[in-house]
Amino acid sequence: MDSPLLCINLIFPNIPYSSNLKTTTKCSSSSSSSSSSLSSAPSIHHEWDENIQPETLVSHDQEQRPLSEMWKEMQGLNNWEGLLDPTLNPHLRQEIIRYGEFAQASYDSFDFDPHSKYCGTCKYQGAHFFENLDMADRGYQISRYLYATSNINLPNFFQKSKVSSVWSTHANWMGYVAVATDVDEIKRLGRRDIVIAWRGTVTYLEWIYDLKDILRPAYFCSDPSVKIESGFHELYTKKEDTCKYCSFSAREQVLAEIKRLRERYEGEEISITITGHSLGAALAILSAYDIAEMGLDVIRDDGRVETKIPITVYSFSGPRVGNLKFKERCDELGVKVLRVINVHAKVPTVPGIIANEKFRYQKYIEDTISFPWSYAHVGVELALDHTQSPFLKPTNDFGCAHNLEAHLHLVDGYHGKGKKFCLVTKRDIALVNKSCDFLKSQYGVPPHWQQDENKGMVRNRDGRWVLPERPKVEAHPPDMFHHLEQLLNKSPGSQLEMR
Amino acid sequence: MDSPLLCINLIFPNIPYSSNLKTTTKCSSSSSSSSSSLSSAPSIHHEWDENIQPETLVSHDQEQRPLSEMWKEMQGLNNWEGLLDPTLNPHLRQEIIRYGEFAQASYDSFDFDPHSKYCGTCKYQGAHFFENLDMADRGYQISRYLYATSNINLPNFFQKSKVSSVWSTHANWMGYVAVATDVDEIKRLGRRDIVIAWRGTVTYLEWIYDLKDILRPAYFCSDPSVKIESGFHELYTKKEDTCKYCSFSAREQVLAEIKRLRERYEGEEISITITGHSLGAALAILSAYDIAEMGLDVIRDDGRVETKIPITVYSFSGPRVGNLKFKERCDELGVKVLRVINVHAKVPTVPGIIANEKFRYQKYIEDTISFPWSYAHVGVELALDHTQSPFLKPTNDFGCAHNLEAHLHLVDGYHGKGKKFCLVTKRDIALVNKSCDFLKSQYGVPPHWQQDENKGMVRNRDGRWVLPERPKVEAHPPDMFHHLEQLLNKSPGSQLEMR
Repeated sequence: MDSPLLCINLIFPNIPYSSNLKTTTKCSSSSSSSSSSLSSAPSIHHEWDENIQPETLVSHDQEQRPLSEMWKEMQGLNNWEGLLDPTLNPHLRQEIIRYGEFAQASYDSFDFDPHSKYCGTCKYQGAHFFENLDMADRGYQISRYLYATSNINLPNFFQKSKVSSVWSTHANWMGYVAVATDVDEIKRLGRRDIVIAWRGTVTYLEWIYDLKDILRPAYFCSDPSVKIESGFHELYTKKEDTCKYCSFSAREQVLAEIKRLRERYEGEEISITITGHSLGAALAILSAYDIAEMGLDVIRDDGRVETKIPITVYSFSGPRVGNLKFKERCDELGVKVLRVINVHAKVPTVPGIIANEKFRYQKYIEDTISFPWSYAHVGVELALDHTQSPFLKPTNDFGCAHNLEAHLHLVDGYHGKGKKFCLVTKRDIALVNKSCDFLKSQYGVPPHWQQDENKGMVRNRDGRWVLPERPKVEAHPPDMFHHLEQLLNKSPGSQLEMR
Repeated sequence: MDSPLLCINLIFPNIPYSSNLKTTTKCSSSSSSSSSSLSSAPSIHHEWDENIQPETLVSHDQEQRPLSEMWKEMQGLNNWEGLLDPTLNPHLRQEIIRYGEFAQASYDSFDFDPHSKYCGTCKYQGAHFFENLDMADRGYQISRYLYATSNINLPNFFQKSKVSSVWSTHANWMGYVAVATDVDEIKRLGRRDIVIAWRGTVTYLEWIYDLKDILRPAYFCSDPSVKIESGFHELYTKKEDTCKYCSFSAREQVLAEIKRLRERYEGEEISITITGHSLGAALAILSAYDIAEMGLDVIRDDGRVETKIPITVYSFSGPRVGNLKFKERCDELGVKVLRVINVHAKVPTVPGIIANEKFRYQKYIEDTISFPWSYAHVGVELALDHTQSPFLKPTNDFGCAHNLEAHLHLVDGYHGKGKKFCLVTKRDIALVNKSCDFLKSQYGVPPHWQQDENKGMVRNRDGRWVLPERPKVEAHPPDMFHHLEQLLNKSPGSQLEMR
């Protein structure tokens, strides 16, 4: 039995995200490993791997600088050049995992249970979100929740309750906006970070078959040649007057919130980081583009000097979103996208099977013949390969290859193209099996282990088992209308509607 | 939508089993019922059903007596004559449910998880068993756990861990012996009750296809014509020297324990009540017969006057166990069996599809031609029908019809042959869906809701998710050998073996 290896990180602190990260990642591939069949975590080895020179794994001059001094590079200022290759930068590894965990939080908190009348909501109130997820130490607070209407043409994406009286027949919770509020964390990050995390799908991947591959003009600007897939567009822009949660579109909710936060933190150095997995990654790119296209990232000091709030997307296993023109417009606007994929996952290959960014005449067919099924990925790719991890079973399972926790595990062990897989942080491998069956059985971690006790049923005072009532699901803040109106006045052509 | 009805029991106390039960069960079938689509429990109605005379439901002269005065009748002294028909006696209803819940406890506490190294054990230590199951108020304490070897020819019955290092590769926890220890409960019951509960199978019913239908002499007495199904016999009698949990057979464990308890409570009025569901019901009948055949129920005052400890079996959805001769021998020994079945369940129809107690020439073919596939049910049948409960979905699902909690629900609503189904006690209908999908969806109870939080995974001090170690699983008490030896001396022909 091969016992996989965990690299020793002698200097990284045990408590993540709490202090400046320093260098010296060491790897081991000693064969004197002990069996770890009963432990949920692999053994830790202290020997050096003689085949891997530590010099090839670390880049001393970069890592000696704290994140606060180089956060713009980590956010993609130079399109991550030199940070992914020849060796993954340790700060960047931590940042990818950190933002990936913000996306994962949107799964861990979502009520998927069709027998719950709260199916389709977030299980926790915003004020207790990070606390309930054991993420209180992240230094962020929820600033608002995002909803979308399920009344669109993606029948397999939305979770619908089977119960007759439900919180909403139209809405699904789609994610959240959070802001770094902890002083130490803001200092560590070097700026006040605004995170937007979009929920995707963990296990139900049927929605990709629902995609119609139909491109339509985004109309977030006046140029109709910038096109995005119509299903994503609908999910992002559609609203439903009869439902208080989706009386504003996801788009309106996120734009109004970003405008509000910009004003609230005026004068501070700010970053906007958008993250999502799967369909959530599509929404991440779409909203990043939208925020930039709406000019919400532009700051004019005294009305003269213009600076920009960096907009960065950490996308995990995301599909293509729009056409080549859309990609070019994102580049033009300075939206930075780091696309983390597993080469064995299917979602990142759709839509655009016929014509995509790998097709050398794509620009020609888009410009000249307006070929209608031409899609292009945006941004820089970090391609991982789950067969490189000795912790994972060889499997062709679609859900495993697509799983977000598995991606984060792969990031943890990735050192650069062609380099040996070797875990760096103390990230728990058991997390991989939260909602899939991917870890080798020798680690003794049950598959699909993330579940609520008794599916949330509790005994009430009479001794009866019931699904307890939850606090009322919050809809939209009262100042929403005010912010939207101001946006509308500023961008009359952007198809924002008022009621 | 039909809203099912809950009968009002005006006198039964809310806290079960805590005081003397009195009469007056009233039924309602008013149509002015309110919707209960969001409640996990149906509405309670206060109107009288004019079609059902309460006189037909209750038997005043019996019910005014407390259980302590009529417990022998409830335990089957007169073969439950007049207690099942024309109307189910309220005491008996409570007793069937109470003993059914003792059998249910063997499921609720069993570790079914093949990814646990404790798969096949009881999740709780004996000392905390009833407390962990919220059954501390029952007034019983575990006196010992029972194990059997899985090294027999019922491949689909035993739960085996997929983990390489496990608590035992051969043993499965099979149930327990418990004793009434609470003074008030003993007073209410009218005697000190010893319960033996045997575990069966909730969801994995494949074992019935493994039954070979082969009868073999039990050899618990010298008469070889008393025969039982060989798989049940093996499960009950086989041991495995290499495993400390099954170095004694289930048979030896139970006999030694009953002998020990008899001696411990010498001079007190005692009852032995054996309960089990499915395969557990087969073991219940087998062990009841064995205890009687071994004479463990016989008490000789001063060596002269002979009295007998009543032995009663509450069997739920049990298969046939032995041949007609076996049944006759059980009757002869005074073993009382109340067989609660759902007429739509399959297990009670096997083995003995070819020749069984309904075949009028059974005695002839057994005695004369020694027909080898002839089986007979033992005892008195209480036949329920799940299509009579308005709370349950119409379904042909094998597992639903067989489910123990569903049986207890049906007992709660049963009033006698041809009588309207109408719940009497405040037993929670949500329990039905613990491990099946049987309740109508309007009650908002998730199917298969009984599950551990995160499959038992917890975060350790390092923040890692692990399956925690459990206290060492107790094997057999040191005085086991002593009691067995005495039994052996007493019954040299009973095939008890010593090591």
